Amino acid sequence: MSAQAQQSEEEWADIAPDAARRLVIAAVQAFAERGYHATTTRDIASRAGMSPAALYIHYKTKEELLYQISLVGHRLALDILERPALADGSPAERLADAVRSFVRWHAEHHTTARVVQYELDALSPEHRAEIVGMRRATDAAVRGIIEDGVRSGDFDVTDVPGTTLAVLSLCIDVARWFSTEGRRGPDEVGDSYAALALRMVGAAGA
Amino acid sequence: MSAQAQQSEEEWADIAPDAARRLVIAAVQAFAERGYHATTTRDIASRAGMSPAALYIHYKTKEELLYQISLVGHRLALDILERPALADGSPAERLADAVRSFVRWHAEHHTTARVVQYELDALSPEHRAEIVGMRRATDAAVRGIIEDGVRSGDFDVTDVPGTTLAVLSLCIDVARWFSTEGRRGPDEVGDSYAALALRMVGAAGA
Repeated sequence: MSAQAQQSEEEWADIAPDAARRLVIAAVQAFAERGYHATTTRDIASRAGMSPAALYIHYKTKEELLYQISLVGHRLALDILERPALADGSPAERLADAVRSFVRWHAEHHTTARVVQYELDALSPEHRAEIVGMRRATDAAVRGIIEDGVRSGDFDVTDVPGTTLAVLSLCIDVARWFSTEGRRGPDEVGDSYAALALRMVGAAGA
Repeated sequence: MSAQAQQSEEEWADIAPDAARRLVIAAVQAFAERGYHATTTRDIASRAGMSPAALYIHYKTKEELLYQISLVGHRLALDILERPALADGSPAERLADAVRSFVRWHAEHHTTARVVQYELDALSPEHRAEIVGMRRATDAAVRGIIEDGVRSGDFDVTDVPGTTLAVLSLCIDVARWFSTEGRRGPDEVGDSYAALALRMVGAAGA
């Protein structure tokens, strides 16, 4: 198994049975390469080495596959950001931790992250509303850390919602430009962005 | 003419004749809505109120249309960033000016900007190489301002290429999240991001 295939297996380990997981992995690759609208369920089944009828047992529509991918991706994002949001430690430590982990995920899983971040408009209205709700919760986690820092005097921020959006935006765009052939790996970009985020919030000594 | 149609006309005013401009405007909308690979030349011709044969007079392939859009978008980006890069003024004033203008463009023209920033991989190898060269030049413009600031002692940056990438990345991601229905307009986001960029480079008093 290639390193990339191994990583995909681990990334989607919670999806069972095996056939459903193979379909999700195939869908992520197809959506990332050609876009959601240019991909057919036949393309996805064929990439997974299955028949269209076999796909239909697990997912009734292409949109159901996108929803599954989006849901797993957003749940993970929420986990990543809520842990430091609820943790002990100074606001600076917690913000650095949140940014470092969020950037690392967008770098390591940049193919999945592109689908998760750029294909929101292709979700059905019901699914989109659910995902938008999860995005509000991830925003609130980071905003909470920044508010704590402003309250304690550790941070100096005038527009908290705008700065929260900018910090998250900086992390998300890593999925667009990150390449495994680049000069820096996920850990280095994570550390560097944690330091930049501390400067953005005006943390003392950052 | 709607405000959006008016803006599109102005955005592509340099493209002549009228029919070619109408095709570019139709292509931008189609690529932004459905993605490059899901769009056919027939879709584009039909949106422009033309026959596929009439499209063929101006553009031999769908890729030629994408290349035209990408070229105009990247030329504009280069203009926007080279002006402050070559201007007089302190490094802080020039960086703020560059970020403000670049963000404003990504907000005002977010539909075009999404196509320009997210469909690079669909260009032919020759066209892609040309566009990548232009992107190197835009990077160099911003890097030059940051280097000037480090040299003069106005900025405090350890990793100049990494910080340049982060500042540009923050501006580019505006195209993903910006909405005309949002709380802030292009000018407000531009001003706020100029201030954040000054903090990212450790400008005194930022």
